[in-house]
Amino acid sequence: MSRFLSSKYASLVPYTPGEQPKILNVTKLNTNECPFPPSEKALAWAAAHTRPLNLYPELLCGDLRAKLGALYGLGAENIVLGNGSDELLYFVFLAYCDAQHGAAFPSISYGFYPVYAAFTGIPCLEVPLREDFSVAPEDYFGLGRTIVIANPNAPTGICLTPAEVETILQKNPDSVVVIDEAYIDFGGETCMPLIGKYDNLLVIQTFSKSRSMAGARLGFAAGNPALIADLNAVIFSINPYNINSMTLALGLGVLEDEETTRKNCRTIMDNRAYTVAELKKLGFTVLPSCANFVFAASDRIGGKELYLQLKERGVLIRHFDKDGISNFNRITIGTREQMDILLQNIREILEEGV
Amino acid sequence: MSRFLSSKYASLVPYTPGEQPKILNVTKLNTNECPFPPSEKALAWAAAHTRPLNLYPELLCGDLRAKLGALYGLGAENIVLGNGSDELLYFVFLAYCDAQHGAAFPSISYGFYPVYAAFTGIPCLEVPLREDFSVAPEDYFGLGRTIVIANPNAPTGICLTPAEVETILQKNPDSVVVIDEAYIDFGGETCMPLIGKYDNLLVIQTFSKSRSMAGARLGFAAGNPALIADLNAVIFSINPYNINSMTLALGLGVLEDEETTRKNCRTIMDNRAYTVAELKKLGFTVLPSCANFVFAASDRIGGKELYLQLKERGVLIRHFDKDGISNFNRITIGTREQMDILLQNIREILEEGV
Repeated sequence: MSRFLSSKYASLVPYTPGEQPKILNVTKLNTNECPFPPSEKALAWAAAHTRPLNLYPELLCGDLRAKLGALYGLGAENIVLGNGSDELLYFVFLAYCDAQHGAAFPSISYGFYPVYAAFTGIPCLEVPLREDFSVAPEDYFGLGRTIVIANPNAPTGICLTPAEVETILQKNPDSVVVIDEAYIDFGGETCMPLIGKYDNLLVIQTFSKSRSMAGARLGFAAGNPALIADLNAVIFSINPYNINSMTLALGLGVLEDEETTRKNCRTIMDNRAYTVAELKKLGFTVLPSCANFVFAASDRIGGKELYLQLKERGVLIRHFDKDGISNFNRITIGTREQMDILLQNIREILEEGV
Repeated sequence: MSRFLSSKYASLVPYTPGEQPKILNVTKLNTNECPFPPSEKALAWAAAHTRPLNLYPELLCGDLRAKLGALYGLGAENIVLGNGSDELLYFVFLAYCDAQHGAAFPSISYGFYPVYAAFTGIPCLEVPLREDFSVAPEDYFGLGRTIVIANPNAPTGICLTPAEVETILQKNPDSVVVIDEAYIDFGGETCMPLIGKYDNLLVIQTFSKSRSMAGARLGFAAGNPALIADLNAVIFSINPYNINSMTLALGLGVLEDEETTRKNCRTIMDNRAYTVAELKKLGFTVLPSCANFVFAASDRIGGKELYLQLKERGVLIRHFDKDGISNFNRITIGTREQMDILLQNIREILEEGV
């Protein structure tokens, strides 16, 4: 850091993303990407519809917002786009939190939430999970804070039902409740239908997981038009052209091929069931996951040790050095072939350890 | 706005970008885009080198940063990338300004600077231009504020020399001086060579103008490694994957074809000389521009009136309803054909007015 950096960032601890190796001949199961690239149909559509690159992108991205809204029975006025959902989550912390109105989120959840809170100087309450690692809705009743819940939660994969989320919305009528549905397409039930009923609900989703577009950076938030206007005011105060023309076209292209998205999700759910069953045969504890990853721990090898040994063998999974979950690893569900490589390596590691 | 928006934004006035018509059959000279798309060579390179889109982009973007650094005799450690230079400018206001250490910039300059200052709650000093619309370096000596100067300035197009910038750097050793060189490639002289000499200099450039990539969103900041570390800490606290894989590959592709970039800049400078000469023949006052736009006023028709009449005829230029410059219009320099359409329409409007 330089001697010029504002003192407000004196104790800044930025987020640590999962490793992104440049060389791709590893089995990469550490950052919850989709193992399948965007379809040929989606890519062809995007190539044919990208606005000339020397011109600025379309402001406000009306077509993509309308098409996304239609998917969920909403209008373009209910949708705002982000350069990935991370950007939108940051905007939420800016817009709806301040020194008087802090944030609350699960103590074990997406590791970026506490980073946003610290960076924006917002008091935050980290709410413990139940012993079974699930989120207890009643712990969020009447907190007087902006509430952010990943659903399914990460890295556990455990999901609340919309009815459970509804209780949180009802008990916090004067606070925004953000449901981060990055992983909702792998077996959870979306809270989108609640948007018409609650003006304090913001649902955030991403094209990085089920829609194969992690590399293109596209997220969106859905909510009451007044909430969307807030986020647009933030965007137009920071970076109005936050979505580039190629990503915009690719997003539309991927939505032209929802069939592939649904098929990919089914494949990943099948591979998840297979992986869970195999891990359990090896004695692992595996939390019930509605996401494209599983969170698993073994009595036979420590979480960090397994992570390191797999890394040495060219298999990347994600380990979090954090109290209460350090014996677990988060394993992205990839192709059947990738899962077999993972499982075979785990078997060999466990046998060597005997 | 919703009832949930933080009161810190009660009087928020976001930036107003130039119009971006969806229908492209207008002569678009209002947002300083390059009239030429990225070259076939650049596009082919990008298509062949884009990382699979289902994977997250390369973190830290080492190749592009190294290649950009090399262009200016710098290293990758001197460069950080933004989702457009707007994003980087916002990060600069976050990193180097606070209630104690405010910002200073010319009173007539890029309209986003005061928006950033207001949005981040930073006291700002708007320094008047000289009567000839030039920036007076001595007005910035020892201000005790973070200084942001567009060079060439917008919307005037007038440029400081590196020697003039150097006096500002020397007289503000304890403040960051940001030189926003969005338009430097059209005849100005870059301050990049001063980076090795001054640890308080940050130079910001963009791929949106001379490099034909407005639609792809790519900007970069160059400076002392400690300043770059500050901005990376901000990025990793907000949105670590801020540059998507397609833009990253296209940026590298465009740098593979510097010859086209230089040729396009020469063409635009030729077209600028032609446009200035023709406007002067029509009695316009035209400020001496080093940018891909000119700032021009006529005694025969008001600035807003000319803007509106041209718009009605399908020619978009940019008018700023601001004291001191409301009789001027900012006209992007496009192709020779575009400039002839503009000039012919101006001639007709002036004749009708007689």
